[in-house]
Amino acid sequence: MSKHKVIFPQNLIIEAETGATLKELMNREGIEFDFPCGGRGKCGKCKVRISTGAGEPLDEEKRVLTAKEIAEGIRLACLTRVKGDMRVEFLSDKKIGHQILLSGLDRTVAIDPHINKKYLEVDKATVRDMRTDWQRIKDRLAAQGDEYRNAKIRLPVLRAIPGLMNNTGAKMTAVFYNYNNKVRGLENGDTSGRLLGIAFDIGTTTIVGYLVDLYTGKELSVVSTLNPQTQYGADVISRITYASQNPRGLDDLHRAVTGALNSLIGEATKSAGVSRNDIYAITAVGNTCMHHLFVGINPQSVALAPYVPVVSDALQGDPSDFNLEINPAGKVFVLPNIAGFVGADTAAVLLATDFDKSEDIRLVVDIGTNGEIALGNKDRILACSTAAGPAFEGAQITCGMRGATGAIDHVTFGGNLEYSVIGNVEPIGICGSALLDTVAGLVENGLIDERGRFMEPEEVTHPVGKKLKDRLIRYNEKPAFLISGSFDDTGSRPVLVTQKDIRELQLAKGAMATGIKILMKNYGLQAEDIKEVLLAGAFGNYLDPHSACAIGLIPAELEGRIKMIGNAAGAGAKLALLSAAEYRRAEQAARKVEFVELGSDPDFTSVFAESMLFPAQENGSKS
Amino acid sequence: MSKHKVIFPQNLIIEAETGATLKELMNREGIEFDFPCGGRGKCGKCKVRISTGAGEPLDEEKRVLTAKEIAEGIRLACLTRVKGDMRVEFLSDKKIGHQILLSGLDRTVAIDPHINKKYLEVDKATVRDMRTDWQRIKDRLAAQGDEYRNAKIRLPVLRAIPGLMNNTGAKMTAVFYNYNNKVRGLENGDTSGRLLGIAFDIGTTTIVGYLVDLYTGKELSVVSTLNPQTQYGADVISRITYASQNPRGLDDLHRAVTGALNSLIGEATKSAGVSRNDIYAITAVGNTCMHHLFVGINPQSVALAPYVPVVSDALQGDPSDFNLEINPAGKVFVLPNIAGFVGADTAAVLLATDFDKSEDIRLVVDIGTNGEIALGNKDRILACSTAAGPAFEGAQITCGMRGATGAIDHVTFGGNLEYSVIGNVEPIGICGSALLDTVAGLVENGLIDERGRFMEPEEVTHPVGKKLKDRLIRYNEKPAFLISGSFDDTGSRPVLVTQKDIRELQLAKGAMATGIKILMKNYGLQAEDIKEVLLAGAFGNYLDPHSACAIGLIPAELEGRIKMIGNAAGAGAKLALLSAAEYRRAEQAARKVEFVELGSDPDFTSVFAESMLFPAQENGSKS
Repeated sequence: MSKHKVIFPQNLIIEAETGATLKELMNREGIEFDFPCGGRGKCGKCKVRISTGAGEPLDEEKRVLTAKEIAEGIRLACLTRVKGDMRVEFLSDKKIGHQILLSGLDRTVAIDPHINKKYLEVDKATVRDMRTDWQRIKDRLAAQGDEYRNAKIRLPVLRAIPGLMNNTGAKMTAVFYNYNNKVRGLENGDTSGRLLGIAFDIGTTTIVGYLVDLYTGKELSVVSTLNPQTQYGADVISRITYASQNPRGLDDLHRAVTGALNSLIGEATKSAGVSRNDIYAITAVGNTCMHHLFVGINPQSVALAPYVPVVSDALQGDPSDFNLEINPAGKVFVLPNIAGFVGADTAAVLLATDFDKSEDIRLVVDIGTNGEIALGNKDRILACSTAAGPAFEGAQITCGMRGATGAIDHVTFGGNLEYSVIGNVEPIGICGSALLDTVAGLVENGLIDERGRFMEPEEVTHPVGKKLKDRLIRYNEKPAFLISGSFDDTGSRPVLVTQKDIRELQLAKGAMATGIKILMKNYGLQAEDIKEVLLAGAFGNYLDPHSACAIGLIPAELEGRIKMIGNAAGAGAKLALLSAAEYRRAEQAARKVEFVELGSDPDFTSVFAESMLFPAQENGSKS
Repeated sequence: MSKHKVIFPQNLIIEAETGATLKELMNREGIEFDFPCGGRGKCGKCKVRISTGAGEPLDEEKRVLTAKEIAEGIRLACLTRVKGDMRVEFLSDKKIGHQILLSGLDRTVAIDPHINKKYLEVDKATVRDMRTDWQRIKDRLAAQGDEYRNAKIRLPVLRAIPGLMNNTGAKMTAVFYNYNNKVRGLENGDTSGRLLGIAFDIGTTTIVGYLVDLYTGKELSVVSTLNPQTQYGADVISRITYASQNPRGLDDLHRAVTGALNSLIGEATKSAGVSRNDIYAITAVGNTCMHHLFVGINPQSVALAPYVPVVSDALQGDPSDFNLEINPAGKVFVLPNIAGFVGADTAAVLLATDFDKSEDIRLVVDIGTNGEIALGNKDRILACSTAAGPAFEGAQITCGMRGATGAIDHVTFGGNLEYSVIGNVEPIGICGSALLDTVAGLVENGLIDERGRFMEPEEVTHPVGKKLKDRLIRYNEKPAFLISGSFDDTGSRPVLVTQKDIRELQLAKGAMATGIKILMKNYGLQAEDIKEVLLAGAFGNYLDPHSACAIGLIPAELEGRIKMIGNAAGAGAKLALLSAAEYRRAEQAARKVEFVELGSDPDFTSVFAESMLFPAQENGSKS
């Protein structure tokens, strides 16, 4: 069956087979449109104008449409069938409500990009019509809709007019921000079909970019890179110190991140076979420090009591304000921060999870070098931040590594030990999720005690533990647990977990658990009140929920309610890119959040001390 | 009598003697304020708050003011006398209506600068007040007045906040455009007393700058320079050709003029003892070609039929958009064009002369390389442009020179010839006004005929003419008229007018006279309907009205109604700098003007041929 191109308003181009009705296409693509009589051609309410490719009207259409309407190409969307390429226009000014489903999240969004375009054919001046070039562009725009009346223009765009008026027929495309009447760009010819955007999640360690088509919501490519700021320090505090103590420190860090974004834009557009000039919108999220460094603000105040950011508002700017190389008519949108250590990335997570609209009480935990936790529903949201440290990301762990080829990513304790390796190669180290599994197994099989101390082999009493006893070795004269490989020359490289590694994980999980408990206490909630636990972040997507509960990272009662939602910060950035309304909502959601400063809580020390412990095992031994 | 400093709202600082009442000061300085009872202290309506320097209240004040008002420093302006330095605040939000008189023009303007400032003292964050730095600046601004609520901020200014919050007490001054709530600048400490602007008149040949205090309207210095674009061509057409035919031509011309403006800013601020960083507003006027080159727009369309500019609207931009080096929080305002060859300079002339408000029909003639003419009143304004050529400026004239030292600037024909020389030195050439006088004298004394041809000595019949006959010499074998000096080695260098010079002047005055006549015809006016003839431009200020009428540049009937108004374009630029309302009015005035394209007029050829002739003299001889 042959395929045709059907162009809906806002240049939404849909491939359609011969014979499909427009109603079917709209339903399939999630375009909101009313069919009051259910699509039987009776009510005549689903009128559209077929400006290209209108065929003869059906008898049913002749009954409800006037001759004038028929002559103008008006047809009923429920009855009109695709026979060839078509262009469909709506009779009202309403924006197309084109819904797309966000992968990994059970939610759809109506596409409503920040940038819009208008194609114009402008007459040239004659002795009888001496309007200026800009005046005739303005007049043509005014005829396109009320929102374009009394148009203004940016100075650099005004300068481009003489070049555009010289092309044949003075055909050009005007670029606008949010249906505002200021012309941000004028492009030669008809470029109205090209409108891309890229959403960035700027992590302390990793930056991810999502290139999307702003008409269809389709993801064209996903790219990622190590945050090059790591050369100035692995964690936010060392970067803040660098920014504050070096005369050009702030600039170095700002340029490092924007340079990385420009490289990612190059990579993403190359892989999608498009031009970086087709990109008109960028959204960016990150923790408060990443946010300030990206915007170019000295983040020093974030590191000093009372840990207040310079700015929390959602920010917009031109690409040149951020040294970003996309279409200069485009715009950059930075999502709002919440508090000193609860940044725009958390605002994006709240957006992606519809946290501020939920009836149910939910807990969302974004695990990274810093862990951000939010608890609540549409009525009240509490949030806090914990310095979990890099243990979850495999850093500062003896055999630790990021989740890359060669990393053991999951470990199962049974009669013996089983593990899986990323890329199915010989293991060279372990990543965070496997460290969690290992420690969970050690706890559950009585190989370490509640305080995290390795048992001496003779202390082990757990039946499974006994079988694993041989793996309790000494490494650099200290106790350790061997996962794979051996120390003789014949076998593969040993991968093990040391006492120090366990202490690192204890600190990390203790910090996270403390945050969860203090938020619950402040909210006045028990575990049973929480309907859902959402684990976000790259790490959150890989860890085993049982292991997380076994070590006490998440309260054990919640194990059955854990849901992995992947990179929700990135998904929120994408939402804010596809929908101006969602971007505005992020600001409202962020302002709704009450920040809880954990260190100021009177119970902090005792809760933290208790959270460092592992849960007692019924059949484990006590030291 | 000792002097004190009295500071009125908007930082208007007035020097006042001991004992003067505030009412007297306000009247003297043109500050609009109501004194319903005439200043007798009876009605209690002229309340002001004396925030610094309030003395004990008078008994009359105690009768009309409450104890609370008195405690708050409220006093009556009609009764309060200056005893020392004082700060006076108005109780209503109204802007101060401070009138200044523009020299050379019979009009005053209420000062209302485009840029305003607010001094702020901002609290720092504490554990109990964790608002962000920007939020606390916003909140402090909101308390200053409704116009500052929900303030926005420019990204580069946001980046400056951490540096400002570190200063003692976080004292800063916010800079705004036109009471808009977007912060354009934040400056360390209290800079609210500094607000300067500079108005530029960008002529084809000369650029003039007026540095003024935007609080008082006081002119701090006037600077001028040759337009360095002359290196690319003396007239607008040769510059347009250069811009269009060289790849970097437009940029060369744009940088030439903006570079000159930056130099003039340096010169003006140095001479006034201020900093270029104190300048927050620039206005610029020029003909359409100068306008386009200054804005950075290719002016090619202005030179090609149908001679339409790219843009006529009043334009605003940041200093960096124009490569201008003033305070980056400042703004640049370009006045509107009227038509292809009637530019923003004419719009400024109309503004300066209140042309669009006048009941009387007036004619304004701005004489330069291009001559712009406007005719009309508040009901209808016609305008045209004539390519007068450079003769009026002394260029392309055998002994011609600009009005500088050594130039003969006026010539009187009596029993013999008398002349004055700029700088009272030996003459080295003549400038436009003297050329006009000379030709007028030659016409009136029968030494040239109606067609401009030199008489042979024997043809001269006019009594005065006969005495001057010896000055009719031959130069390069052609007739000429010797004004000063001689050809022998002993005397000073000869200054003379040749037949070719007379032809040049005939073309120039013919073009101007044609414009005046065609406008009068189109308007349906006779000379007697015109109440006033305003001569603008540097040249217009020097020429002798009688000479202008004697050669037929201005209709002879209007001689008694001629008024010199000096550089009215520059005065208009200054008005638009001192008053945002006047700037907006320039746009309205410009749009009101009907442009008359002289070349399209069916009578053009015959009127031009007739206008080239000199008026017939009753007692002169005919050839």
